[in-house]
Amino acid sequence: LARPVDVDALVDGARRGDARSVARLISLIEDGSPRVPEITKALVTAAGVERARVIGLTGSPGVGKSTTTSALVSAFRARGQRVGVLAVDPTSPFTGGALLGDRVRMQDHATDDGVFIRSMATRGHLGGLAWATPQALRVLDVAGCDVILIETVGVGQSEVEIAATADTTVVLLAPGMGDAIQAAKAGILEIGDVYAVNKADRDGADATARELRMMLTHGQPREAGQWRPPIVKTVASTGQGIEELVAELDRHQEWLTESGAGGRRRVQRAASEVEALAVARFRAQARSFRDDDGGSRLETLAAQVATGALDPYSAADQLTA
Amino acid sequence: LARPVDVDALVDGARRGDARSVARLISLIEDGSPRVPEITKALVTAAGVERARVIGLTGSPGVGKSTTTSALVSAFRARGQRVGVLAVDPTSPFTGGALLGDRVRMQDHATDDGVFIRSMATRGHLGGLAWATPQALRVLDVAGCDVILIETVGVGQSEVEIAATADTTVVLLAPGMGDAIQAAKAGILEIGDVYAVNKADRDGADATARELRMMLTHGQPREAGQWRPPIVKTVASTGQGIEELVAELDRHQEWLTESGAGGRRRVQRAASEVEALAVARFRAQARSFRDDDGGSRLETLAAQVATGALDPYSAADQLTA
Repeated sequence: LARPVDVDALVDGARRGDARSVARLISLIEDGSPRVPEITKALVTAAGVERARVIGLTGSPGVGKSTTTSALVSAFRARGQRVGVLAVDPTSPFTGGALLGDRVRMQDHATDDGVFIRSMATRGHLGGLAWATPQALRVLDVAGCDVILIETVGVGQSEVEIAATADTTVVLLAPGMGDAIQAAKAGILEIGDVYAVNKADRDGADATARELRMMLTHGQPREAGQWRPPIVKTVASTGQGIEELVAELDRHQEWLTESGAGGRRRVQRAASEVEALAVARFRAQARSFRDDDGGSRLETLAAQVATGALDPYSAADQLTA
Repeated sequence: LARPVDVDALVDGARRGDARSVARLISLIEDGSPRVPEITKALVTAAGVERARVIGLTGSPGVGKSTTTSALVSAFRARGQRVGVLAVDPTSPFTGGALLGDRVRMQDHATDDGVFIRSMATRGHLGGLAWATPQALRVLDVAGCDVILIETVGVGQSEVEIAATADTTVVLLAPGMGDAIQAAKAGILEIGDVYAVNKADRDGADATARELRMMLTHGQPREAGQWRPPIVKTVASTGQGIEELVAELDRHQEWLTESGAGGRRRVQRAASEVEALAVARFRAQARSFRDDDGGSRLETLAAQVATGALDPYSAADQLTA
């Protein structure tokens, strides 16, 4: 039997910063529990305006996202801030770690009760990240996090979703990984608020930073008052450059507030969430439609489409009629 | 002014194998033209049951997807078959080539009128691949393709979508790229019908194949009559192993037919397409709702959610009420 879920007790626990309550709430969200609407309503009532600052980190496998995340956790902890970490990167040692057991770096923070670390699996769930991330953010916010770091791999569509979710998006590169051109090809040069060339003690770091600067300025007309993404060189494993990275993150945060762009991003984030919830509900309804004989209407229509007897648009019409 | 679109003429052109008509139809689909429903209906009327065999190729950047695709094109052409290629890989030289100009390998086939090559950009469009791919397949099918190869990068969600779209999915690995364990972490060991360890002339190819075999057999109870994914070693750049790869593809195709699994996959593919179309329509409707003052209802609700005045589930209710 599944444990009974006492939503009020869990939300109360999260407010007190109880790590087990936080973990259980995020698990319920990740698993798509039927109690999620109730949980979300309780969290909104408990929290009001979201307070935590959300920083997304993205980049190709191997650029050092986890090490940088860990270094940022240390930096924000040194200020006495509470930090949440959501790893939604399928190649991250946090999420993929079960296979290799290399959660080593994050172990530094495992016993610090001012840090909540959580991996989320979204593999195979199209739009799963868009759906679950804002909900998980809300849990960490209620738990009193001042800063939430979201780590995701920069290939495919997840990095676009993360940019839509974060207040500040950090794009990480490393020299000798195919460099800035690879990043441009992967489409991640459009989403960064701050760029970090990590592993900057390796050959080619200056060249990568230069290339990146050229690509960022090329063809992007910048108006006055617009944010110009800075490039920071870091060696996250030794902490080199992390202070400067944090300073640039703070500068972006100030710009978000002063320009009003931060408020607009938050409204945009809420709009995406509301839309995703409405779409998910519609999808569930569409799958539950039954024919007179009790069979799935979607499957009946799909069989007709597969044989060419019906076109898919007419089938979509009939599905929702 | 945009060129007027004569759908009937374009579909007629595609039936005659006219490459320009094929390219124009796929462009209209890629751009989400309002004429797409009409185009799809005309294609279904022209084609009836889809005839072309669809083979998906996926794997991490650098494993040699494009080279393998090119070698497979040559192999099927040698049989006198018409071949279509859809590259939906953002790191592919076919799609990303505009940046680097390295479409070299595919140049071999550029002047062969029995080959249609087409790249599709889906970057930033969540579900864009699910939506556009079946439509593009239909165009290539009407154009008389016997085989359609879809190439996509194996990170994120696109490879799961491709597996849902293809009759046969080929997962490519290369030795020394992080190997089979990386593939397992990226979740691509669940979707392959055939595995190819490419660049098999490099050190470590045998070890990669062995690791892969262990991972594939481990924990997967295989029933009689089930398909057991074979592992082929290839050096696509020299053609080594391509004959064996094609033989395994043919063997899988026969299994699909004999077991009935092929028919079920096609119905499943149609179901995904119908559902995606219905969801897209719902999404467009949800965005078009207006408040009494003509403002976007989604934005009004999102602003309330952003300030904590409303929870997102209640907002989703109100959006569609």
